[in-house]
Amino acid sequence: MIPRPSGIVVLLTDFGSRDPYVGLMKGMVLRSHPRATLVDLTHEVPPQDIALGSFLLRSAIDRFPTGTIVVAVVDPGVGTPRRSVCGVRHGLYWIAPDNGLLGDVWTQPSEGELRAMDLEHLGLRATSRTFHGRDVFAPLAGNLASGRVGFSSVGPRIDDLVHLPPLDANQPRVIHVDTYGNLVTNVPFHAIARVRSVHVAGRSVPIRGTYGEAPKGSLLALVNSYDLLEIAENQGSAAATLGIGRGAAITLET
Amino acid sequence: MIPRPSGIVVLLTDFGSRDPYVGLMKGMVLRSHPRATLVDLTHEVPPQDIALGSFLLRSAIDRFPTGTIVVAVVDPGVGTPRRSVCGVRHGLYWIAPDNGLLGDVWTQPSEGELRAMDLEHLGLRATSRTFHGRDVFAPLAGNLASGRVGFSSVGPRIDDLVHLPPLDANQPRVIHVDTYGNLVTNVPFHAIARVRSVHVAGRSVPIRGTYGEAPKGSLLALVNSYDLLEIAENQGSAAATLGIGRGAAITLET
Amino acid sequence: MIPRPSGIVVLLTDFGSRDPYVGLMKGMVLRSHPRATLVDLTHEVPPQDIALGSFLLRSAIDRFPTGTIVVAVVDPGVGTPRRSVCGVRHGLYWIAPDNGLLGDVWTQPSEGELRAMDLEHLGLRATSRTFHGRDVFAPLAGNLASGRVGFSSVGPRIDDLVHLPPLDANQPRVIHVDTYGNLVTNVPFHAIARVRSVHVAGRSVPIRGTYGEAPKGSLLALVNSYDLLEIAENQGSAAATLGIGRGAAITLET
Repeated sequence: MIPRPSGIVVLLTDFGSRDPYVGLMKGMVLRSHPRATLVDLTHEVPPQDIALGSFLLRSAIDRFPTGTIVVAVVDPGVGTPRRSVCGVRHGLYWIAPDNGLLGDVWTQPSEGELRAMDLEHLGLRATSRTFHGRDVFAPLAGNLASGRVGFSSVGPRIDDLVHLPPLDANQPRVIHVDTYGNLVTNVPFHAIARVRSVHVAGRSVPIRGTYGEAPKGSLLALVNSYDLLEIAENQGSAAATLGIGRGAAITLET
Repeated sequence: MIPRPSGIVVLLTDFGSRDPYVGLMKGMVLRSHPRATLVDLTHEVPPQDIALGSFLLRSAIDRFPTGTIVVAVVDPGVGTPRRSVCGVRHGLYWIAPDNGLLGDVWTQPSEGELRAMDLEHLGLRATSRTFHGRDVFAPLAGNLASGRVGFSSVGPRIDDLVHLPPLDANQPRVIHVDTYGNLVTNVPFHAIARVRSVHVAGRSVPIRGTYGEAPKGSLLALVNSYDLLEIAENQGSAAATLGIGRGAAITLET
Repeated sequence: MIPRPSGIVVLLTDFGSRDPYVGLMKGMVLRSHPRATLVDLTHEVPPQDIALGSFLLRSAIDRFPTGTIVVAVVDPGVGTPRRSVCGVRHGLYWIAPDNGLLGDVWTQPSEGELRAMDLEHLGLRATSRTFHGRDVFAPLAGNLASGRVGFSSVGPRIDDLVHLPPLDANQPRVIHVDTYGNLVTNVPFHAIARVRSVHVAGRSVPIRGTYGEAPKGSLLALVNSYDLLEIAENQGSAAATLGIGRGAAITLET
């Protein structure tokens, strides 16, 4: 149930790349476990955007070795009495503030195992009130990765987790615009078995199997690598062509 | 001829940094080879820009340990029947879609050794039709890096490779604008032995040995770290000052 | 005094992420020491901004394992006769051009140990005149990290270092705007014991303990993770709200 640590630590934050914040977290992981392998999932979560962070975090499932430790920091409440949590689910360890960031991984609070971090018991002290990623989450990740601290020592078991108020899952909409201008929606692949096209921004966009099945510069919809419906333009930006972005509603046409 | 794998995997893509795409590729490498060392060459190739990706990829030659595996993904044809290839040249392994991306490394198709990837034989299955970097290229890189799969098992030998239509090599031009606004040209260092200045955007720019040999804020031309002619401004942006970019023609003045 | 190398190499540059420059430095570290662990501090130092590079570099102190090698390249004088230096201080090795970049680490030239790099003795040759990060600093970092070259072999001891002309430390001002639009100032935490608010851009901003102690969208000032006074907006951008940036003067109100 509790996997053996792989020694790999994965980081997702809203820190961007202009500041040394991510590098300092890695340094603190390495101070606890000098042989850790460090991987960036992304640090371009828009500032304080817990919902998008949670969505992107979910993509790590089944894509890293069992026992990998995923540390997520989108943390507008840093330094306030909000809880910090550590859990095991899908064979991975997850460390994050308890603010909804783990919501897309823990869709049911009873899944996996969850513990609240007991900093005093762990011997961790936040030297700043504004950067618990560096002061608390990274050292814990290193200690778990090295095996020096076992999961059962993290703190007391809990069976609840903060969740963001859910969006209306019945309303198909764009939830993310990726680097290419592809419009990622909340529609899972199994919901489009009988869908033939997608109505979006006054246009009807046909379902295709992959980008190259539409002519260059043409719009298409497909099941993407998240197993979600995506609206794209072959070798172009659907977001730019359609003039829409995150939150835009779409309609499935059968 | 076929080097022993170094355990190092280098990645070049057009994925940018907003999405977890690069991190997920690294996770899949680590699932095949948990001790792999991962290095980013760049992920800021403009979307679908195979020509620039190919140019930047070439910079890896002689700069990584022998036996390093370079994985390149600029792949507008993902999920279509285009081939995927793996080759050995300059002491490195190269994995990429067969769309011209390896063109600047394989200037002659007869060089090195090339194989077409046989996914079935390799036991690799693309779980998505849009992200073979994660589903196919990364697992193969991990398997090669670990030594679990030998180069001869990748698939059948081939002796041809898709090449982009060549630009007119006789027309000196800007092929890349770097972070600093330096204008990298296609003119190799050996072609400027008798050149005294470069005519560009109505200006005559003198040849210097390095940036600091021109006054601050002045234009100069030099041989850069790619061994190519570059037009630069000392502590400024030549691209901004001259108002030109990629593709701009230049004239060599003797 | 001279720590045993940790095998970890940390990089800070102004190279950005569009070009393969950082990746090529890492490749050259790995050619000297294939088992090195590589960490990015940041590569988004604005081009040629030695002062900000020096400030950000300082954040590495106490955040990496003893014996870690920090390589910094903000180097407008590359290829000119400027010195290259390597020093040991705060338990870390530091490699940089001697242009002020180490000024915030070496606040007194007599601190730690400093050596000028003797390239000939080290067997290092700059194959380019524009990229000593790749040609010289990275190979030296790898050689130090592997233990193959000891610190005493780097070159002759020196007891001076180029320092940038100091800003007036008595004038409180903004020295950095971070990813969130937080305004980092040059005021150390111990100087605000009796400060109750900060006057900036015509506004009086109260001191708080952390972001979440101000209402969402409100301005606050706090001691940040650099142990410096910072002006922030809870879940917003103080830089955008106040319309100011680096260099702006502030006044402490008691």
